[in-house]
Amino acid sequence: MDGDTSKDLSTGVALPPPDDEFVSEKELESWTNTILPGQYDSYEGVIIDHRSLPSDASVFKKYLIASIAQWKKERKHGIWLKLPIENVKLVEAAVAAGFGYHHAEPAYLMLTLWLPDGPCTLPPNASHQVGVGAFVLNDKNEILAVQEKNGPLKGTGVWKMPTGLTNQGEDIFDGAIREVKEETGVDARFVEVVGFRQGHQCQFDKSDLFFLCILRPTSTEIVAQESEIAAAKWMPLSEFKAQPIFDTRPTMKKMLEVCLARVEGKYQGFAYEDIHPDSLNSNSYFYYNQVDFFGSQQQSIFRAKDGERSCRRVVT
Amino acid sequence: MDGDTSKDLSTGVALPPPDDEFVSEKELESWTNTILPGQYDSYEGVIIDHRSLPSDASVFKKYLIASIAQWKKERKHGIWLKLPIENVKLVEAAVAAGFGYHHAEPAYLMLTLWLPDGPCTLPPNASHQVGVGAFVLNDKNEILAVQEKNGPLKGTGVWKMPTGLTNQGEDIFDGAIREVKEETGVDARFVEVVGFRQGHQCQFDKSDLFFLCILRPTSTEIVAQESEIAAAKWMPLSEFKAQPIFDTRPTMKKMLEVCLARVEGKYQGFAYEDIHPDSLNSNSYFYYNQVDFFGSQQQSIFRAKDGERSCRRVVT
Repeated sequence: MDGDTSKDLSTGVALPPPDDEFVSEKELESWTNTILPGQYDSYEGVIIDHRSLPSDASVFKKYLIASIAQWKKERKHGIWLKLPIENVKLVEAAVAAGFGYHHAEPAYLMLTLWLPDGPCTLPPNASHQVGVGAFVLNDKNEILAVQEKNGPLKGTGVWKMPTGLTNQGEDIFDGAIREVKEETGVDARFVEVVGFRQGHQCQFDKSDLFFLCILRPTSTEIVAQESEIAAAKWMPLSEFKAQPIFDTRPTMKKMLEVCLARVEGKYQGFAYEDIHPDSLNSNSYFYYNQVDFFGSQQQSIFRAKDGERSCRRVVT
Repeated sequence: MDGDTSKDLSTGVALPPPDDEFVSEKELESWTNTILPGQYDSYEGVIIDHRSLPSDASVFKKYLIASIAQWKKERKHGIWLKLPIENVKLVEAAVAAGFGYHHAEPAYLMLTLWLPDGPCTLPPNASHQVGVGAFVLNDKNEILAVQEKNGPLKGTGVWKMPTGLTNQGEDIFDGAIREVKEETGVDARFVEVVGFRQGHQCQFDKSDLFFLCILRPTSTEIVAQESEIAAAKWMPLSEFKAQPIFDTRPTMKKMLEVCLARVEGKYQGFAYEDIHPDSLNSNSYFYYNQVDFFGSQQQSIFRAKDGERSCRRVVT
């Protein structure tokens, strides 16, 4: 090994040098039966079968060197190597063979190797976290407000709407309903997304999409979440609006104003529709301006019946 | 090491057993100067300083064992260990000490260890990829349409609108403009997001948000992208709409209908506003129904002037 480093064309990241320990042609030939099992994908790629990996790192290294030589001959492009965390002993050999990190989840580390000379065109990993905020107003013109135990507003006395990140695989409307329930104990139905904010360089340098949602409560009793919420209450809207925080935070102010316009029936957001599976997506929801689309009158959230316009279903 | 496996409470994933090699109290005491340097965060966590790690795996292991013992005494919660890919030799020791994978980027692998008995509350990694589709109509009622070289519509003869994933850190409006330019060579200005679809279990089991955008062309000449696009052209809207694909794909059909309603001035989507930095976000855009909010008339995309309503700026 010398001190040279190569450069991943896709990212500009300096990688450690591939292990250049001498392997003779003869030795390489003797490994011809050591091509790692895998599948070819439709992009000239190879997906190595991680269920059939040798458990010994030095054996794995031989397999890797022989396999890469073979795939280069076959003019393959991207090689995908998923190493379950149980196979952690193999990670070092993979990096020594030229593989780089692609992404990781608790159960595995995904490594990739790009063989052609041109720039790497492998798809990147997920880029965004998705958060929700819930504006929940009851029939007495009281808003469901919380004070945070942690985070930047901790200890400031500021009352805010419940917010949180969606879980992996969770829909925006479900995430908003769940966060309200978790933080305050209140049940609610989803009405609309009235706006969304995109920001960058958030947690782990990833981006953030925050969906501002209108919900209607279907229960009243409050049970504040112990771990995250310092206090929760139904608060007169006039009192909530009068908080000085809105004078210094243009985003919070605009979001409040949009919610108020929606409540007053002067504004329309996006409700969701359950699109029946088509051949591309097994399960997805489309959010759009259904009042404009279907030509109905704009409605106050107080007049809308439960479930109305919050979810349509396309029948084909 | 025995065959026991522990379970990461946050994910339910079976982890390999921590290395239970015997370390005597005396030996541990002799390592008291081997606490890894790091910072305490505001959530009772420790962020290990990855710039000061020993390069030798066995030395690193001693540091880890001593450090974990110390942090347990201090009742710390989550331990964050970022290992640059240059430190790949240390990954195995970290997993042996009980760390699990959190996420990875090409330059590093992030590992975490949760010390308390309760469930892990460390924030998860990014959950979504973000895509854009661009409905670009010119003054002759022609839509900018492409045929794909790869993907599920390859070879089907179907003409579709340009689509693609946003890049890391890229805004939705910029992503839509870039994809149109890259795939067809046409310059365009962004008008609105008219709807969005959320789906799950897409690439690497992550979720997907697809933003349907209206754009107006500011140039006419087409130069199709060689690598991804089989053909690109300005296509009469009537011909585009008449394609049989819309009869079998309810999502594509609904998206087309929403775009047409917007073009005809019967529909309003979300334009974006540049929200001046407040103390929470250094740079972010808020997308909402500005025509409803500002009480203007709905406008045909043909009548809107360049830049009008596609971006407002909040002055505080």
